[in-house]
Amino acid sequence: MDKKISDKVINRLTIYHCILDDYIEGNVEFISSKQIASLLNIDDSQVRKDINLLNNSGKCRVGYIVKELKKSIEDTLGFAKTKNAFIVGAGNLGMALAKYDNFTNYGLNIVALFDNDKKKIGGTVNYKLILDVSKLPNLAKKSNVEIAILTVPKLYAQQTADYLVKADIKYIWNFTPVVLKVPNDVQVWNENLMGNFLQFTYNI
Amino acid sequence: MDKKISDKVINRLTIYHCILDDYIEGNVEFISSKQIASLLNIDDSQVRKDINLLNNSGKCRVGYIVKELKKSIEDTLGFAKTKNAFIVGAGNLGMALAKYDNFTNYGLNIVALFDNDKKKIGGTVNYKLILDVSKLPNLAKKSNVEIAILTVPKLYAQQTADYLVKADIKYIWNFTPVVLKVPNDVQVWNENLMGNFLQFTYNI
Repeated sequence: MDKKISDKVINRLTIYHCILDDYIEGNVEFISSKQIASLLNIDDSQVRKDINLLNNSGKCRVGYIVKELKKSIEDTLGFAKTKNAFIVGAGNLGMALAKYDNFTNYGLNIVALFDNDKKKIGGTVNYKLILDVSKLPNLAKKSNVEIAILTVPKLYAQQTADYLVKADIKYIWNFTPVVLKVPNDVQVWNENLMGNFLQFTYNI
Repeated sequence: MDKKISDKVINRLTIYHCILDDYIEGNVEFISSKQIASLLNIDDSQVRKDINLLNNSGKCRVGYIVKELKKSIEDTLGFAKTKNAFIVGAGNLGMALAKYDNFTNYGLNIVALFDNDKKKIGGTVNYKLILDVSKLPNLAKKSNVEIAILTVPKLYAQQTADYLVKADIKYIWNFTPVVLKVPNDVQVWNENLMGNFLQFTYNI
């Protein structure tokens, strides 16, 4: 990657990717920037600008070749290099994320889930094992996992984060509404559902 | 509201709000922009700039008065006017969102969940009823609900959206990885989990 791509563009490119998936399922070969734009209610010059950032857009006389454009988004955004991650907290949200098959398409491989509830431990969800959280440090080392998706209840968020840090987890995708305190070499990405909701409803 | 606040600022303000909640729980009266900044690993000039957008920041000699700053964020972002919404799809994700008590704090009131699974209908989650989806149009009208949170499986996303549109739902918070086709008077907010993940991992 030579060009730096902004967060907003990454976000739009993944949505274009969803559209391309639908077109492939429908056996459609070509797509125009206008078609993408009208589905998203945005300007087609924006779509073209975004696509121009890709190394090979699959541009042709009638628009873009769906398969090539899809592949190009994948290459550019690095879907290809699969990243291993744990889900920590096998409640409803953790389960929902484990079932979210789209993750695999985007290069995120959920290795296992962790919980401390004896009733859940040993079970599986979407072919992934739910393990005792005490097994996490060892498996992180063995499987070289550095990403954890944190879906524990609010009350346990910080202490679980501390535990993850000790287990050499370097990236925490935080779904709890808690602002975590972590050392400088650990990155936290706050999945701020309420922030998203408020952006959405700000003008209602 | 006289000043237009950007999405990024709204997002940060809701995270500051989480921090203020923690401080209130810990009975701390004052907070400085430096303290907020260091928790989020951002510059404190940024924090001050964001807070300056609020009508009344609760600024005082030693920083900000936690309770006033919190209230000011709530007033500015409109947490006060409660919005009613339905969750459509009572799977793991729908359940997780129904249990997410933070929604209430931010002015989102989940009226009910809907599903078409006879085994789920009649049940409750977090004191909210799971109803037959056929009852949605009537309840939307009676309770004046215009927001739907869409958490059905990918395969049923578009047909459910069509059904919601017919029931006069005007805002769809879309958690499915499908780009929905809706009329112009309906707004869709795509909760693009994969886009967020890729922003996060783009540099790993």
